[in-house]
Amino acid sequence: MIITSGANATIKQLIKWRDKPKERRRDNIFIAEGIKMYAEAPKALIQAVYISESFAGECDDTIRNDADIVADDLFLKISDTETPQGILTLLRRPEHSDDIFSDKNGLYIALENMGDPGNLGTIIRTAEAAGVKGVLVSNDSVDIYNPKAVRATMGAIYRVPFLYKENIRGSLQEIKNAGIKLYAAHLKGKSYYDEMNYTSGCCFIIGNESRGITEETASLADEYIRLPMEGSVESLNASMAAGILMYEAYRQRRKAKA
Amino acid sequence: MIITSGANATIKQLIKWRDKPKERRRDNIFIAEGIKMYAEAPKALIQAVYISESFAGECDDTIRNDADIVADDLFLKISDTETPQGILTLLRRPEHSDDIFSDKNGLYIALENMGDPGNLGTIIRTAEAAGVKGVLVSNDSVDIYNPKAVRATMGAIYRVPFLYKENIRGSLQEIKNAGIKLYAAHLKGKSYYDEMNYTSGCCFIIGNESRGITEETASLADEYIRLPMEGSVESLNASMAAGILMYEAYRQRRKAKA
Repeated sequence: MIITSGANATIKQLIKWRDKPKERRRDNIFIAEGIKMYAEAPKALIQAVYISESFAGECDDTIRNDADIVADDLFLKISDTETPQGILTLLRRPEHSDDIFSDKNGLYIALENMGDPGNLGTIIRTAEAAGVKGVLVSNDSVDIYNPKAVRATMGAIYRVPFLYKENIRGSLQEIKNAGIKLYAAHLKGKSYYDEMNYTSGCCFIIGNESRGITEETASLADEYIRLPMEGSVESLNASMAAGILMYEAYRQRRKAKA
Repeated sequence: MIITSGANATIKQLIKWRDKPKERRRDNIFIAEGIKMYAEAPKALIQAVYISESFAGECDDTIRNDADIVADDLFLKISDTETPQGILTLLRRPEHSDDIFSDKNGLYIALENMGDPGNLGTIIRTAEAAGVKGVLVSNDSVDIYNPKAVRATMGAIYRVPFLYKENIRGSLQEIKNAGIKLYAAHLKGKSYYDEMNYTSGCCFIIGNESRGITEETASLADEYIRLPMEGSVESLNASMAAGILMYEAYRQRRKAKA
C-alpha cells in the first residue's frame, strides 16, 4: 500500500518529528534522511523506513520489503531537503552514560551553546575521524537530532558517544577530577594551540559561534588556548576551530605512538 | 526618499544580482550583506549601500547619509537571509592577476569543482587566517559571489586574492614550473598529510565534495596526501579537510621561523 494522503497520521507525525525538538524528545526518536544514513544505521535502533515511490522502483528488494512507500509529492513534504534521495529512517535514540568520559587518556570535546546544526553535525563527523571518545553538549545548544545536524554527521551520530547536560560545568569538573586536562578555545588565550601536549587525557571546550565560552565555564579550564590568525580575521568558524584542535591532538597522539 | 515599491527598478535589479550569477558577472558587481561586510568593505569598491527603514532609525549618520533606504517589508525581499541585519552593500569586483601565484615560498590552495557555497566561503575565511597568498578556483565551482559564500567568508573575500580559471591545470602547471609543490588531497594518498614539509612554496589541491579531484588534475600533483581517519568515517567535509591542511602548513611555517 502506498501512502498518498497528507492527512495520513504517520505523515503528520513525521513532519512534527522533523520540525519539533520536543516531539522528537518526548517519543525518544529521530529521523535520518538519505541512503548513507540508512545503510549505516544500527539495525537495533531502526523503528521504520519510509521510501518514495520512485525510490521504491529502483532500490533493492531488501529495502523495499521493510519500508513503507510514500507517494513522491508527499515524500517531498516530509523530507528536510529540496531534492530528497527518497529514503527516511526513523530510529530510537542511542543511550550513552557518563561512562563515556571514563578513559583517562581519552580525547574529548565539550560544546557550550552551539547554535548552528551544520556546525554541530560537522564537529561530530570530525570527532569520529580524530578518534574522539565522547562529546559533551550543553542543553542550550542546538539539538543533535535536528535533521540538518544529523545529515552533517554523515553517519557519525551512530558511532560517536555524546551526552547533553543541563550543567556542563558539573561534568567538566568531574572530567577534570579524573585527571583529564581541560583546554578552552578562547580568543584571549595566551598560548597557541600547538604549544600544548595533548598526548594524555584532554578535553577541548568550544563555545558559541558569536559569544564564545561563558566566563564561568572558561574558568574551569586548565589552559586557555588560541588559534593564531593572519590578516584581519577575527575568528574561525566554530566547527573549523574544533576540527583543527582535534586533528592537532590526533596528530600528536599518532606521532607519540610511532 | 524611501523605496517602498517592489516595481522599483533598483529593487528588481538587486534581486537579479542576488539570484543570478550571470547578471552579477555581466555587471562586474556583487552584493555583501550584513554590518560586518559593510564595515570591512574596501571603500574604493563600494557602488551603493541599501539599508532597511528600521536599520536607518538606529544606525550612524555616516551610514544613513550614504545609503538608500528601503521599506522593511521590501528589504526582506532583497535580503538573502531570513532575519536580515538591514544593510546590503553593492560592490565592484576586486581584480586579481596571475601575479598572486608569484611568491615561490607562498602557501596556496586550488579548488576544483567546489559545489557548496558555504564550504567555499569557509575556505576563503580560513585561508586568510592561515596566511594563504592566493586561491585558484575552477570555473565549474560555485560562484564565490553567491550571497551565502560571501557571508561565509566573514570579510575575507575582500582580502584574499583569488582567481577563477576555465582550466586550472594550466595554472597549476605554471605554479609547479615556478617551483611550488603541488599536494593533492586524495583518499588514495599513500602519505599522511603531516609527514610532508610545507615550509617552502606549496599548494593544496582540494576536489569536489563527493567526487574528489579529477584524475587529470591529480596527475599534476607532486604528492598525494591524505588525512588519517579513525572509526568508519569515509571522508571529512571538504572545507574541514582544506582547513586542517592549511593550518598544518601554517603551523610548520611558524615553527620553522621560531
